[in-house]
Amino acid sequence: MQNLKVPFSPLHFQNDTLYLLDQRKLPLREVWVRCRDSRAVWQAIRTMVVRGAPAIGVTAGYGLYLGIRTFQGNRRAFCRKLVEQAKYLDSSRPTARNLAYAVERIVKKVNASEESNVLRLKRRVLEEARNIHQEDILISRNIGKYGSRLFKKGDCILTHCNAGGLATSGYGTALAVFYAMKEKGISFSVLVDETRPLLQGARLTAWELQKSKIPSTLICDNMAASLMRAGKVNGVVVGADRIAMNGDTANKIGTYGVAVLAHHHGIPFYIAAPSTTFDLNAKTGKDIPIEERAAEEVTELFGARTAPRNMKVYNPAFDVTPHELIHGIITEAGVLLPPFTRSIKKIKQLLLK
Amino acid sequence: MQNLKVPFSPLHFQNDTLYLLDQRKLPLREVWVRCRDSRAVWQAIRTMVVRGAPAIGVTAGYGLYLGIRTFQGNRRAFCRKLVEQAKYLDSSRPTARNLAYAVERIVKKVNASEESNVLRLKRRVLEEARNIHQEDILISRNIGKYGSRLFKKGDCILTHCNAGGLATSGYGTALAVFYAMKEKGISFSVLVDETRPLLQGARLTAWELQKSKIPSTLICDNMAASLMRAGKVNGVVVGADRIAMNGDTANKIGTYGVAVLAHHHGIPFYIAAPSTTFDLNAKTGKDIPIEERAAEEVTELFGARTAPRNMKVYNPAFDVTPHELIHGIITEAGVLLPPFTRSIKKIKQLLLK
Repeated sequence: MQNLKVPFSPLHFQNDTLYLLDQRKLPLREVWVRCRDSRAVWQAIRTMVVRGAPAIGVTAGYGLYLGIRTFQGNRRAFCRKLVEQAKYLDSSRPTARNLAYAVERIVKKVNASEESNVLRLKRRVLEEARNIHQEDILISRNIGKYGSRLFKKGDCILTHCNAGGLATSGYGTALAVFYAMKEKGISFSVLVDETRPLLQGARLTAWELQKSKIPSTLICDNMAASLMRAGKVNGVVVGADRIAMNGDTANKIGTYGVAVLAHHHGIPFYIAAPSTTFDLNAKTGKDIPIEERAAEEVTELFGARTAPRNMKVYNPAFDVTPHELIHGIITEAGVLLPPFTRSIKKIKQLLLK
Repeated sequence: MQNLKVPFSPLHFQNDTLYLLDQRKLPLREVWVRCRDSRAVWQAIRTMVVRGAPAIGVTAGYGLYLGIRTFQGNRRAFCRKLVEQAKYLDSSRPTARNLAYAVERIVKKVNASEESNVLRLKRRVLEEARNIHQEDILISRNIGKYGSRLFKKGDCILTHCNAGGLATSGYGTALAVFYAMKEKGISFSVLVDETRPLLQGARLTAWELQKSKIPSTLICDNMAASLMRAGKVNGVVVGADRIAMNGDTANKIGTYGVAVLAHHHGIPFYIAAPSTTFDLNAKTGKDIPIEERAAEEVTELFGARTAPRNMKVYNPAFDVTPHELIHGIITEAGVLLPPFTRSIKKIKQLLLK
């Protein structure tokens, strides 16, 4: 596969080492974390050195290779080790669909081969991890291509969280739409929800868009409503962590609220995500597990306490936006329109061929 | 007037000294600022040791007494000094309406009396300051009385920002409803929006409710929507900074978004505010000016930077919730129902009598 252009890359693999741009340190410092075994990769995913469903998938692919790199034994034992490592990496975070997809794909590839030389099997694993990485870039570029057709000159588009280059292999899903518009020379602007509690919008999306010189304005999450009412928002594009077969979409907490507000103000609301985000086992949003995270993410910020001690906190990492509020799902194979039960099935069949 | 019970007081006056709870230090430290002259009171209002329009009014009343306490001379000179001090205190924060109301009321009281003994006039000033203080508590308690009838056992009520004891003389407006429910022995719980950018919910409302042992859970502003969808919110009560004559209400930024979400989920949405919040000069929300504040409130938190440098920011301090989304306005004279154009006019006439 050819090397595709990306504005920047949040991860690269070299000399049996996975380098991850530490997204917790952005935007003030660009620090790289080196992972040399699967335990380090598991930790990096869990502690959100790397985040964003597609980036987690690519990371897990390399992590799986690092998990079997030093293995010694026969093919049968190797396959056992591979499955064990796949399960281990999959346990790092529960909601992102792409994580399971990446490790399952590599396991399948190995199981399907009749290669008995373990050294060559290891090479296959790395090769497949690299394929997933390159495909992720291609997918992002195609999402950008299709998504950029939905907007016009002068539009102001709101996004929530970071579905950007940092959440993928460098071009994004929701932000891919913006990068593609910029490449096409369309002038437009972006409203960036800061996205509490972890501020991925303020820290990451703002950083990316500033780096790419795309005109953008940062707001607190609770300011979107009044801007919509003032007629200053022409559309919304966000990413997805998992999409059920009826179109119900799990994404960063706050997405559902934005969708309701967009609906109330008659503003189109789009999801941008690779087709790997669709979960065949989830019929509706009710089948998607929602991760609840530590209270300190809400009550502490950069070490400073924002609330009284022992305050009870509710901190879900994601919410589910019901399909009725979604105008379209921008995938690498085109924009899916409602009814999603039909369009998702169709694209899944098409891509499985 | 009898002494009315409050859960705590953000200010008290004793031995010619005004004690103010420093709200900038909450929730981690309870520091009291002592004011022994009007200059110290002016400073405390200006630097937001005390905040919330009703609390500022009460503070200014005592400040006026401290401004004339050591005066020596005849009645005429005393009255000149009183007006001069009233103007001085009024200049501490020009937008707070209750501030002007409080000092003007005391000046009028003195002017209307025929007392020539300056010592007795000084006592009148202190007496009137105490009356304003006690009346503020009575208003809050009546808001609580009427508001508490709107909810029932087991309800979970969401609030935004701090319309609490800290913003008044200790009983609040929106939070008065909760204090009254607690006194009546109704078991219920509260969801506290942290309220970006200045976190009045996390810092102040959480502190108040914890102090009063009212079961409460802190959330980021963007989490309210999914809790509403899950059926976990039975009502919303918030305060108000200014209410137009048609019921359109200006309140802390984010209030409008909560109102839209409540509407979408069929959840009743109430405003709690004293009748002095109605602005006869504002026909609709369009007549209410919205203050835009410094970008650093969004991009910096306790000295830590949350966004890249030079990021463009939009930071309005308030938004306007249109009257259609409001189920009722809880005042000290009862709960006003739509159509508000009629009910607000009626209560204004009633209170002017």
